[in-house]
Amino acid sequence: MFEFLDTIGILVFAMSGALTAIYKKLDLFGVYCIAFVTALGGGTLRDVLIGRTPVGWMLNIDYVYIITLGFVLSIVFNRYLERLRTSMLLFDTIGLGVFTLISLEIGQEYHLNAVVCIILGTITATFGGVIRDILCAEIPVLFRKEIYATLCIVGGILFFILQELQVASNSISLIVVSFIISFRLIAFKNNWSLPIGTVFAKK
Amino acid sequence: MFEFLDTIGILVFAMSGALTAIYKKLDLFGVYCIAFVTALGGGTLRDVLIGRTPVGWMLNIDYVYIITLGFVLSIVFNRYLERLRTSMLLFDTIGLGVFTLISLEIGQEYHLNAVVCIILGTITATFGGVIRDILCAEIPVLFRKEIYATLCIVGGILFFILQELQVASNSISLIVVSFIISFRLIAFKNNWSLPIGTVFAKK
Amino acid sequence: MFEFLDTIGILVFAMSGALTAIYKKLDLFGVYCIAFVTALGGGTLRDVLIGRTPVGWMLNIDYVYIITLGFVLSIVFNRYLERLRTSMLLFDTIGLGVFTLISLEIGQEYHLNAVVCIILGTITATFGGVIRDILCAEIPVLFRKEIYATLCIVGGILFFILQELQVASNSISLIVVSFIISFRLIAFKNNWSLPIGTVFAKK
Repeated sequence: MFEFLDTIGILVFAMSGALTAIYKKLDLFGVYCIAFVTALGGGTLRDVLIGRTPVGWMLNIDYVYIITLGFVLSIVFNRYLERLRTSMLLFDTIGLGVFTLISLEIGQEYHLNAVVCIILGTITATFGGVIRDILCAEIPVLFRKEIYATLCIVGGILFFILQELQVASNSISLIVVSFIISFRLIAFKNNWSLPIGTVFAKK
Repeated sequence: MFEFLDTIGILVFAMSGALTAIYKKLDLFGVYCIAFVTALGGGTLRDVLIGRTPVGWMLNIDYVYIITLGFVLSIVFNRYLERLRTSMLLFDTIGLGVFTLISLEIGQEYHLNAVVCIILGTITATFGGVIRDILCAEIPVLFRKEIYATLCIVGGILFFILQELQVASNSISLIVVSFIISFRLIAFKNNWSLPIGTVFAKK
Repeated sequence: MFEFLDTIGILVFAMSGALTAIYKKLDLFGVYCIAFVTALGGGTLRDVLIGRTPVGWMLNIDYVYIITLGFVLSIVFNRYLERLRTSMLLFDTIGLGVFTLISLEIGQEYHLNAVVCIILGTITATFGGVIRDILCAEIPVLFRKEIYATLCIVGGILFFILQELQVASNSISLIVVSFIISFRLIAFKNNWSLPIGTVFAKK
């Protein structure tokens, strides 16, 4: 099931990248590139950092096809997709949860410290969007408004607590992904955000 | 012969980077850095992604000397080089073709899928310029106006079609490089560009 | 002793990143990320380029704790730290010298050419700041005003000259680090900077 959700996540991440690039009036090649790095940038960075090369998408060409599909859908339907923004948020959030989980598991396979695994999970889920914003010459929205990186971190901590408590592996996956997805939606609904860095200076 | 063309390509890419940085009023170290990443950024990214480390230029110090030459030429002659813009375009285009070809071959050595090889070829030929623009805090020109990434992709497809047809390896190299170079020059002459991403929305 | 100085350097680099991010009004996660990449970005890039993976900080979790400390100090005391700018410059300079030296030695362990070792040393000492500026959507200050990359290069050359002269390894370390630190402070005091790239065009 997680494979299916992973596919959905990649597709929606690619579409979110493509729509941003279309909005920025990039040409078709630019739109494709931004779709690509938004969908695969986080996982690519993870693989490069831990030395898992050639990086993942090179060994599974399906990813390239999924992104191409997301690219085509975005180009053809971009006017209609605007109205589906809320449904897309749901899928985007699914990607967020699944990508975090997959990377936590890959980190463990490489015998990395729990803290490092959590950082890897957060990088994978969020860095595609950061690269997207850098390529569009903007300060990453992740660093200014979005709360979702925090959810990846808390989800990662939950993952290791449940492992310590010897919860079955399948249940852990389900709990962590559900946690990230539900809190993201609640956060979005209530417009939660992190305080900015001058929080203590304001006193 | 391709080694000689590779050298020319590196030199001209370095000069194109240096001239952009000079125009942006960076200091000498900044100019050198931009020259360096423009010339070697694409190949470095390719090597990191496929795990070919230490990356290529570390094992062949000549690259560093060629870039240093390009840097010195740009600093000393930058006013005159402006007038040579058309000749430089020719050399830049040679670099484009040769870099694409070399990376297609490296991708095959690593037993990567044809689609992945084409992506690698395109990354190598174009990403130096993308990093140059990011370092200068601009949206990469590649994503807005230039058609040449498209030519790398089409050149890559041609490479694999000719291989399927069992054309001799040397002829393939010549045909692919000539194709990329001639179409780039035709595209430049006719001011061709890709449509922007809202092409379908405009209907 | 160099381990202790390395720790100080990481801490101060993290704080310099955090303070820049706070000034840019990023949220707490953004501030943490910028602190992280400023402190570890240079060393991470070095490790990725030479294939020393998983990258260094993943195998020594202490780095993450030091950065977290720097983050907390910056958030809580950012108003007071402004006044300590000169003391911070001293520590920052210590980091610069120590990071350069460590990377020169790592480059030699990997049997890389002296020129490549010097490039690696310079990348390690300076690239964290470059990534910090890119993430904040600015042209890196390193490419415009700062002279310190030049000092890393000269320090690197000194390192290899002293090795040729068969000076004892410990003495080389001390001389190189002291050289970088003292010249940085002199350069800062006298407001030295590199000429911009149009230096010859102005004639």
